Amino acid sequence: MTEQKDEADNPSLQMVDLIRKMRDGNALNAREIGFIVEGAAKESIPIEQLSAWLMAAWLNGLSIDETRALAIAMRDSGEKLDTSHLGKTAVDKHSTGGVGDKTSFLVAPLAAACGVAVPMISGRALGHTGGTLDKLDSIPGFRSALSLREFEEIVQRCGVAIVSQTPSLVPADRVLYALRDRTGTVEDPGLICASILSKKLAAGLRGLVLDVKTGSGAFMRDRDDAEFLAALMVATAESAGTQTVALMTDMSQPLGRTAGNWIEVAECVELLRGEAPRQNADLRELSLHLAGWMIHLGGQTETAEQGYSAAAGALADGTGLKVFLEMISAQGGDLSVFDDLQANHRPGATLALKSWKTGYISEMDTMELGWAVQRLGAGRLKAGEPVDPNAGIEFHARRGDHVTEGQPFATLYATTEALLSEPVARIKAAVTFSEEAPEDVPLISRVFVRETAEAYLRDAVR
Amino acid sequence: MTEQKDEADNPSLQMVDLIRKMRDGNALNAREIGFIVEGAAKESIPIEQLSAWLMAAWLNGLSIDETRALAIAMRDSGEKLDTSHLGKTAVDKHSTGGVGDKTSFLVAPLAAACGVAVPMISGRALGHTGGTLDKLDSIPGFRSALSLREFEEIVQRCGVAIVSQTPSLVPADRVLYALRDRTGTVEDPGLICASILSKKLAAGLRGLVLDVKTGSGAFMRDRDDAEFLAALMVATAESAGTQTVALMTDMSQPLGRTAGNWIEVAECVELLRGEAPRQNADLRELSLHLAGWMIHLGGQTETAEQGYSAAAGALADGTGLKVFLEMISAQGGDLSVFDDLQANHRPGATLALKSWKTGYISEMDTMELGWAVQRLGAGRLKAGEPVDPNAGIEFHARRGDHVTEGQPFATLYATTEALLSEPVARIKAAVTFSEEAPEDVPLISRVFVRETAEAYLRDAVR
Repeated sequence: MTEQKDEADNPSLQMVDLIRKMRDGNALNAREIGFIVEGAAKESIPIEQLSAWLMAAWLNGLSIDETRALAIAMRDSGEKLDTSHLGKTAVDKHSTGGVGDKTSFLVAPLAAACGVAVPMISGRALGHTGGTLDKLDSIPGFRSALSLREFEEIVQRCGVAIVSQTPSLVPADRVLYALRDRTGTVEDPGLICASILSKKLAAGLRGLVLDVKTGSGAFMRDRDDAEFLAALMVATAESAGTQTVALMTDMSQPLGRTAGNWIEVAECVELLRGEAPRQNADLRELSLHLAGWMIHLGGQTETAEQGYSAAAGALADGTGLKVFLEMISAQGGDLSVFDDLQANHRPGATLALKSWKTGYISEMDTMELGWAVQRLGAGRLKAGEPVDPNAGIEFHARRGDHVTEGQPFATLYATTEALLSEPVARIKAAVTFSEEAPEDVPLISRVFVRETAEAYLRDAVR
Repeated sequence: MTEQKDEADNPSLQMVDLIRKMRDGNALNAREIGFIVEGAAKESIPIEQLSAWLMAAWLNGLSIDETRALAIAMRDSGEKLDTSHLGKTAVDKHSTGGVGDKTSFLVAPLAAACGVAVPMISGRALGHTGGTLDKLDSIPGFRSALSLREFEEIVQRCGVAIVSQTPSLVPADRVLYALRDRTGTVEDPGLICASILSKKLAAGLRGLVLDVKTGSGAFMRDRDDAEFLAALMVATAESAGTQTVALMTDMSQPLGRTAGNWIEVAECVELLRGEAPRQNADLRELSLHLAGWMIHLGGQTETAEQGYSAAAGALADGTGLKVFLEMISAQGGDLSVFDDLQANHRPGATLALKSWKTGYISEMDTMELGWAVQRLGAGRLKAGEPVDPNAGIEFHARRGDHVTEGQPFATLYATTEALLSEPVARIKAAVTFSEEAPEDVPLISRVFVRETAEAYLRDAVR
C-alpha cells in the first residue's frame, strides 16, 4: 500500500537524485533501492552512477532497512529457485570463508540425511581462502555449473546439490559486485550482507546457518566488525522471512588437518566413513553443530542440540556418506576415486617440513598460512585463474600442541618444486612458539539468533 | 626531485588503491592526483573508478594541497595558451555567474585599453544564469569557437578576445565535469575551484580577478560557502603562481538594467559610449572595480584604485568602446548592428509589466528572476539547447525604489506570446514590497587577496 502511494507521489525517479540523497545521509526507501537494483540488473543505470552511489553508501553506511531492501531487491532481480515442490524444507549454510574450511562436504549431506533439503550455491578460491567448487573439481567428472532446473532436480532426488551461481540468479549482484571490486567499495557490512543474502534468499531457503569466522584467518580480522556483520545478516534475513542463525567460529588456525583441494575432500570422506582422529576433531565438531542448526531450522528437531545428535547419528550410521556419494554421482563425479584416497592424490612436488623449534605452538597467522596454500598452487590471485587439485598443506601439529625441533610439522604439496620455498618461509613466519601452553580458544564463541542479533544492533554504537 | 623519488619508490599506481586512500580520508600527493587526472584525460582510468573517487572526494573533502595539485594537473592535461610572446601581461576575470551579469563586455575591453592582454574563455547560459557566449552570439557573424592559434592571434592584435573553451584545453576537466554532473558531485568547493582554475591557469594568466556572487541570485546562496570558495580559489591560484584577487559582489538583484542576450550587449555598448543612467550605475561601478584590479594585477598601475581611475578614463575617452568594436570585428561580428541598437532587437512577443503593488521594492528572489529569463527563451535547461537572442527582461525599477501600482515595472521579451505568462507569474512571486525603504546592500562586500584568503582558510572550521 505504502509503495503504491509512493509511486503515485513520485512517478519518475532520477538516479542522480538518489545519489545525492545517499550522499547527504538521507535514507532511501524500498522503492528507490528497487529502482537502483533494477537499473543495475538491466544495465539501464550507467556504471558511473552506480559507482558514485556505492561510494556514498560505503561512506555514509546503509541502515538496516536499506540493507534489507537491497537484499530483497537483489533477490528479485533474476530467476529464483523453486523449492515449493521438494516436499522438504530448504536450508543452507554459508561461511564467510577461511583456510581449510571444508564443512560444506559434511554439513550438506548430514543435514540432507536428516530430512532437510540443501540447495547449496558455493564459490571458488580467491586470495588466501579456498573455494568449495575448486575442491569438488578435484573429483573427476564432477560438474558444478548446472542449470536452475538441473539443480532443482538433483536436490529433489538426493536432498542436496552443491553448485556454482547460475547467471540467471541475482544478476544485479554480478553487476554490483564487479563494480565494488573495482571501486574500493567491497568491505561494507551493508553491501556484503545484501550481496550474500540476496543469493541465499533467491535459493528459496526457509532456514540459513551462517558461519562467521573470527581470528587470524578471517576476512574480517576485527572481532567487532565480524560480530556486527553476523548480527546484521541474521536480523536482515529474518526480516526478509528466512529463519537465520549465525555462529561466530574460530579461524585462529586452519580448520581440520588439511588445506588444499583434493586433500580436503579426502579428509571429509574419511570423517564420513567414521574415522575420528584428534587432528580434525574441530572440523567434525563444528560440522555437527552447523548441521544440527540446519536440521533444527528445517523443522526436523525441536532444538539445535537435538539436531546435533541427529547429525552425529547420520555420521555414525553412514547415511551421511551415502547421501554425499549419491550427490557426487548425480553431479557426474567418478566415485571410483574414493576407493583409494591416496591414489587419487598426485602432487607434482612434496616436501616434509620438520618443526624448526621446540615449544608450544601458541599462535598461527592463519591468513599467511592461507597465502602459503595459494602459492603452492591450490588457490588463485585473480578470478578465472586455474588451480592445482593436488596442491595444499597437511598439518601434523595444531595450535596448543607441544612440538620438538625435527618432528614432522606439515607436508606441503605443490605443482612444482620451485613453488615450495616461498610457502615454507611463509609458514615459518606465520607460526609463533612459546614456553607455556597457550590459552584455549573456543570453537564457537557466540551464537546470534533473531532476538540477540536485533539487541546487538540496537546497542551497536555504529 | 621529490616527484622523481616518489616515482622510484612507487613505480606502479593502481586507481583502486587511490580510491581507497581518498575513501579512508588520507591525503593524496601530487603524483597520485596527477595519475588520476592523466587517466581521466587519456581515458585510461574507467569512468566507474573516476566516479567512485569523485564521490569519495566530495564526502571527505579535498585539502588545499590536493586542490592545488588537482588544478595544476588539470591545467597540464592538454594544450595551453602561449602568452609569452604578447609583450603584455595576460589577466582575466571570472564570475561565478548570475542574472544580468554582463561585466565581461566592459572589463575586457577597458582593461585591454589600459595595456593588459585579456585572453578570456567564457561559457554558455545554463539554468537560471546567462552565458557570455550566448549574448555575443546575438551579434551577426560573431564567432567564439576559435582555435588556440586564432585566439592567440586576436589577443595579440586587439589585446582581447572572448572565446569558448577549445577541446584541446584542459581535456581532463571535460571528462571529470561530465561525470560530476551525472554523479551528484558538482557542488564541492575543491572540485569547483580546481575546475575553474585549471582553465584559467591553462590560459597563461599572470593575474586573475574573481567575481564571487552572493545573495539570492548566486549559485552559492550561503554566504559562508561563497566566501570559502573565494578564499580557496585565491589561495590556490596564488600558490600555483597566478596573482589573484576575489571580490564578493552583490547578486541580490539582477546586475544592471537588462537580463537576456542582445539587450545585455546593447546595454554595455551604451555604457561604453558614455551614457550613465541611474538604472545601471551598479553595473558600471562594478565593472570599473573589476577592470581596475585587472589593470593593477597586470602591472599597469601601483594600486587597484589607480586601475579604477585608468578604466574610468578609458570609458570616458572612448578607447574602451574602440577596443570592444575591434575585438567584435576581429571575431567576425557585423559592426553595423551597433548603428541602431533598437533596430537589432526583434523579439517575437513583448509585454509591458506594470507594478502590481505600491511600496518599496525590498527583496528580489533573483534566482527566480533568472528562471523567468530562461523561460522567456533567453536561457537553456540543458547544455546544447538553442537560445533566443531577442528574449529577456528589461527592468524599470530596482531594489530600494519606491513604486506606485500601475507604473512600468519591467518589459518582457519572449520568443512567442505563449511564453510570457509563466515568467510574469515568476516575477510577481519573486518580488517583495515593504512600507519602509530596505537597507542598502553593498555592491562589493569583501575583497580577498592572498594574505586575507590564507588567513580565512586557516580560521575556517571546515
